[in-house]
Amino acid sequence: MNDGFTICIVGLGLMGGSFAFALRQAPDPPAQLHASRFTLHGSRLIGVSRNAETLAAALASGAVDAVTSDLAAGVADADVIVLATPARTIVRQLPIVGAHARPGALILDLGSTKAEICAAMADLPAGLQPVGGHPMCGKEVAGFAAAEAGLFRNRPFVLCPLPRTAADALETATHLATAIGGRPIVLDPAVHDRAVAAISHLPYAVSVALVNAVAAADDPLAWSLAASGFRDTSRLAASDVEMMLDILLTNRAVVLDWLGAFQAQLADLKLALLGRDETALRQQLAAAQARRAGMKF
Amino acid sequence: MNDGFTICIVGLGLMGGSFAFALRQAPDPPAQLHASRFTLHGSRLIGVSRNAETLAAALASGAVDAVTSDLAAGVADADVIVLATPARTIVRQLPIVGAHARPGALILDLGSTKAEICAAMADLPAGLQPVGGHPMCGKEVAGFAAAEAGLFRNRPFVLCPLPRTAADALETATHLATAIGGRPIVLDPAVHDRAVAAISHLPYAVSVALVNAVAAADDPLAWSLAASGFRDTSRLAASDVEMMLDILLTNRAVVLDWLGAFQAQLADLKLALLGRDETALRQQLAAAQARRAGMKF
Repeated sequence: MNDGFTICIVGLGLMGGSFAFALRQAPDPPAQLHASRFTLHGSRLIGVSRNAETLAAALASGAVDAVTSDLAAGVADADVIVLATPARTIVRQLPIVGAHARPGALILDLGSTKAEICAAMADLPAGLQPVGGHPMCGKEVAGFAAAEAGLFRNRPFVLCPLPRTAADALETATHLATAIGGRPIVLDPAVHDRAVAAISHLPYAVSVALVNAVAAADDPLAWSLAASGFRDTSRLAASDVEMMLDILLTNRAVVLDWLGAFQAQLADLKLALLGRDETALRQQLAAAQARRAGMKF
Repeated sequence: MNDGFTICIVGLGLMGGSFAFALRQAPDPPAQLHASRFTLHGSRLIGVSRNAETLAAALASGAVDAVTSDLAAGVADADVIVLATPARTIVRQLPIVGAHARPGALILDLGSTKAEICAAMADLPAGLQPVGGHPMCGKEVAGFAAAEAGLFRNRPFVLCPLPRTAADALETATHLATAIGGRPIVLDPAVHDRAVAAISHLPYAVSVALVNAVAAADDPLAWSLAASGFRDTSRLAASDVEMMLDILLTNRAVVLDWLGAFQAQLADLKLALLGRDETALRQQLAAAQARRAGMKF
């Protein structure tokens, strides 16, 4: 044993790798959090991955102190277990984690959808402390090689405690989110899933359909003329396929709702154009222009 | 009269203003173009706008040498007339320009769609030299205040000569496009309109529907969580409404075609998600990912 906490990070891709690097750079906990039993001082990081090359790279980079490809062994000694795999893998790993984690361990995930994961967390053995998590950040590059300590800085870090979650477990999760530079925000899983579907999953789906529609026409001239407008509108289509597949499938009903709402708006626009209804068309364009021009990023 | 050419720029918004500033900074014509009668040396710029404040600002900035709100008077003495108003305004102005331009004048436009404008150019009096033009650049900020000399630099500048257009008129237009920093490319109007509909007008329509769909739900949480993904996918929705309205209405049939192709792709994606058809869904996401990740901007 060491004098600090043992933190096991499961999955060492962009999110898990960045989480490890960010923890390494994290400052000592602020004084007001000393009431919590959690401290990063002297903490030990264990990395879990199925990929031997990733394990070697994580160890060599100093991101983690020890590595294993054995999930059960990796989580057995941990005070904090951070699940940083795609959403459906998290749901599959939770029963294994539950069977091997020690009593009182905090189980935090970094999955992009929360309702299905939190529902699976509810089945964890009593005594374990689950908190759903979603750091609202990312890149269109996946894998440990893309990991960086600054990924979470000043980005919202959504936390979804379960009704059973103890207050000090949520406090520890909040401290972790803050320590890596994030801005913790506690949300109901369903509320989270609906909001991120609107501003992330729907734009992704739209971006995929846009790229596939233009690709289907196979017009080299169109591609050669593509500029910043197409670049930005289609950027999300380059996102990691397995991550996005898990997101769409674990937030399926909500994404379908938003797709329907989007289709209705697009149909309205098409109808106005079809009927040369300039008044309706201008109204739709002006509404979007006013809303979008007023957004601050 | 002066020792150089007189160039009249009609419309002093982002495009017309930038065109004037870029001409001011343009280098002397390269030696190989001396065969053409056109030279920028000693050229005089006249600005035409309905807006008195814009005329005052253009004159004060030195972008133009003279200004007028009278289109007929402005074009009367010009060797080159550059129409930099929205697409439907260009179509409305062409007969007036045709009635007052002097014989041999080059009529170049900067409109974003080309088929309707080139069709209207075909009705110009014989002896005038029409060339459709489309500098492929822009910003989400309109007006003379946003104009900048570098707007066209290294961007494609599409030129659409008519069958009647004389070779030296196209040469002059090519020189102008090059002089302001653009990369001239000669295209058929219909080919141009189909390609830019795919990479510009369709992404714009999609962006508008996205913003309006999320806005309709009126969820402050969604807006507060919106990050780079939503920012980029929705950016085009902030484009100038009157310009985009003209673009959609003058490229209506082609945009409707692309909207249909996009709707079909989105319907496929929705169907796969609805039916939890993971194979079909992965195939669609992976196709878009591979295509988009391979694009260079």
